[in-house]
Amino acid sequence: MKIKLLTTFPEMFDSFLSSSIIGRAIDAGILDIQAVDIRPFSDSKHKNTDDYPFGGGAGMLMMPQPIADAIKSVTEPPFSGKRIYMGPRGKRLNQTLAEELSHEEELVILCGHYEGVDQRVLDHYIDMEISVGDYILTGGEPAAMVLIDCISRLIPGVLGSTESIEDESFSKSGLLEYPQYTRPREFEGEEVPEVLISGDHKKIAEWRRQQALLATARYRPDLLDNADITDKERAWLKEQMKDQD
Amino acid sequence: MKIKLLTTFPEMFDSFLSSSIIGRAIDAGILDIQAVDIRPFSDSKHKNTDDYPFGGGAGMLMMPQPIADAIKSVTEPPFSGKRIYMGPRGKRLNQTLAEELSHEEELVILCGHYEGVDQRVLDHYIDMEISVGDYILTGGEPAAMVLIDCISRLIPGVLGSTESIEDESFSKSGLLEYPQYTRPREFEGEEVPEVLISGDHKKIAEWRRQQALLATARYRPDLLDNADITDKERAWLKEQMKDQD
Repeated sequence: MKIKLLTTFPEMFDSFLSSSIIGRAIDAGILDIQAVDIRPFSDSKHKNTDDYPFGGGAGMLMMPQPIADAIKSVTEPPFSGKRIYMGPRGKRLNQTLAEELSHEEELVILCGHYEGVDQRVLDHYIDMEISVGDYILTGGEPAAMVLIDCISRLIPGVLGSTESIEDESFSKSGLLEYPQYTRPREFEGEEVPEVLISGDHKKIAEWRRQQALLATARYRPDLLDNADITDKERAWLKEQMKDQD
Repeated sequence: MKIKLLTTFPEMFDSFLSSSIIGRAIDAGILDIQAVDIRPFSDSKHKNTDDYPFGGGAGMLMMPQPIADAIKSVTEPPFSGKRIYMGPRGKRLNQTLAEELSHEEELVILCGHYEGVDQRVLDHYIDMEISVGDYILTGGEPAAMVLIDCISRLIPGVLGSTESIEDESFSKSGLLEYPQYTRPREFEGEEVPEVLISGDHKKIAEWRRQQALLATARYRPDLLDNADITDKERAWLKEQMKDQD
């Protein structure tokens, strides 16, 4: 997958793109991610990329021209990918959307800054606005890192064999993940739950499922509505939650 | 505000902490953010930080000991801040939570990796689990950058005078932001909306408010329930949306 990041702070991506799993996938040629500076595309004498908003108000806006030209430069035919803007009005990122985007061959991700971006360049040059959550950031860059990380790990070869994508929160079941334990068997006086060292795989699977149900009911009850749960499990969960009252 | 990031990939934060608004705030002494490597705290011979999960299953888990010792090292008395873990079961980040956290003097942010973190170290050493959204990441680092960016901009002095925090999406009104326009007045045949160059401030404010209402109704109708809207505005909006059908 090829990703072009359009930003006025390309250096902000340096260590993200050279570290950890993303860095390894780029080195291995599975991902090709480049941060492209919008500034050189500015027609203005001082290579400005922002200006005051029409109608007044605090803050500066990103001008349409430098962005349009930067996008054009990275989407020359036969570009067939998606041009994404990281913004608060966008579609909310979730695993379904990440899965969809992981099948694209090419993505362009525009990171806004200042008070925002001229609406016309969004209307003319952006296919999809994506929001990573209901909060405000100083710019789209941290959101773009989240998006890239989330999509990349779904691309075959990016995760190693020890970095499974199974059994995780928001996986197919729609439940949060069960609690996990590793060595030592006793940590600060607390033992690993007995069942996990029983060697009884059926019991372990059962316990983990129950713990996933309980964690979801406790922390994110809103997820239960759409989770893949049997009637029997719903009844069991109701009983458990009653006991807690 | 002092922030300590606990991570097995401290280098991943290098350019985030030296760029843009965050970098400037650190240089100015308003923020003091340090990425602390968990690995040297490991008691094991090869400084391992992960091990297999009890009960089997794919993937590796972060062991409790190195994390506990790393946390202890950065929370020596009189530590009075919050110890946060970036994780999917956490409280969802929003502006209210960001505002609360922006008043803390000290934060410790633990970034998990691999399949997750031993539950006991979370139970014993973490005050608050925070999730930036319903999606899975390869590690907590990108989520931590989002959290830091979101909190930092609310701290007095971090944003410059041209980077207003007023009139934004998810601000007090609970509405998405109205579309914005800057120069040139005509871009690719599309003019800036007439009203914005009218000089009539009352009309401009009215138009922006209407556009914010329309954007919210169009992109995020779920936000309207809790938004600060008058009955008259609700009636107007209903009328507008009817016309679109």
